[in-house]
Amino acid sequence: MSNESPCADSSGIRPGEVAVELPEKFDAGVYFIGRIRTPWKTREECPKNARESEAVCTIELDARYAAALKDVATSTHLLVLYWMHQARRDLVLQVPRHYGEQRGTFALRSPVRPNPIAASVVRLLKLEGRRLSVVGLDCIDGTPLIDIKPYFASTDSVPDAEVGWHAARKR
Amino acid sequence: MSNESPCADSSGIRPGEVAVELPEKFDAGVYFIGRIRTPWKTREECPKNARESEAVCTIELDARYAAALKDVATSTHLLVLYWMHQARRDLVLQVPRHYGEQRGTFALRSPVRPNPIAASVVRLLKLEGRRLSVVGLDCIDGTPLIDIKPYFASTDSVPDAEVGWHAARKR
Repeated sequence: MSNESPCADSSGIRPGEVAVELPEKFDAGVYFIGRIRTPWKTREECPKNARESEAVCTIELDARYAAALKDVATSTHLLVLYWMHQARRDLVLQVPRHYGEQRGTFALRSPVRPNPIAASVVRLLKLEGRRLSVVGLDCIDGTPLIDIKPYFASTDSVPDAEVGWHAARKR
Repeated sequence: MSNESPCADSSGIRPGEVAVELPEKFDAGVYFIGRIRTPWKTREECPKNARESEAVCTIELDARYAAALKDVATSTHLLVLYWMHQARRDLVLQVPRHYGEQRGTFALRSPVRPNPIAASVVRLLKLEGRRLSVVGLDCIDGTPLIDIKPYFASTDSVPDAEVGWHAARKR
């Protein structure tokens, strides 16, 4: 679902990028509940966004949570949240490599953000045990999973939504 | 975007619900980057899902991250992530009050989940300083904000997605 690769550079700052000092302490804690298996071993190999690839990826849920998969297979699509563990968290202004223009972090789907949580809509192909085969991910192999949600078209789908800065680029 | 109210009961287990023992330690930390202001002061007052209400809510971003809002106002819709701080985290099987049937946690949008992160698609009405006026939230007043992302119809919108168990209920 990201339109920025989750495989961006995690070190260094490009001209035009601005970092802030992060708080000294975290406010809450996250459990990694599984891992995502993809064909991409490095950030450079990852597709620029998930729609560029029809690769089948595998979500492996930890045994502890297996019962929570009941009824999941009745969904055609899922919203998957995962933790971009290689991304720095302190940039408020970024210059994405493939756009070359300065944007606010919250105007981008870049993994670089205060809380490096990615949200991707995936198509569910198959659920076997604790393994979900899906299409629609673009992250590095081994990425930590943090949530799986059913995708409700009634509330999650807005076909006519526009991201102005992105649309302007393509005109 | 949730089809379960983020205002569910945070204590007690209903018949048919199953809890697991959570890991001893967290794997990563989250910063609260702002607060969400809504008309709902208690979980009972919250709408059952965001499409039930046209209430205008306000997202107040912390000053630290203000620069990251650059270009955000060019989006018609945003994906907002927030932390359901009142929800228990250990249920793998749940019996939502308004459905009365046992479902797996990952087949529900309930706030009760290992990582109580909600994801809601909102319509952006106005951005003034660090305050975003939006329609589409259903959470309790004061809910901690953890991320704001641009909503890209190209990857985020799947109008024909179906949640089988939910569709079967309505037939």
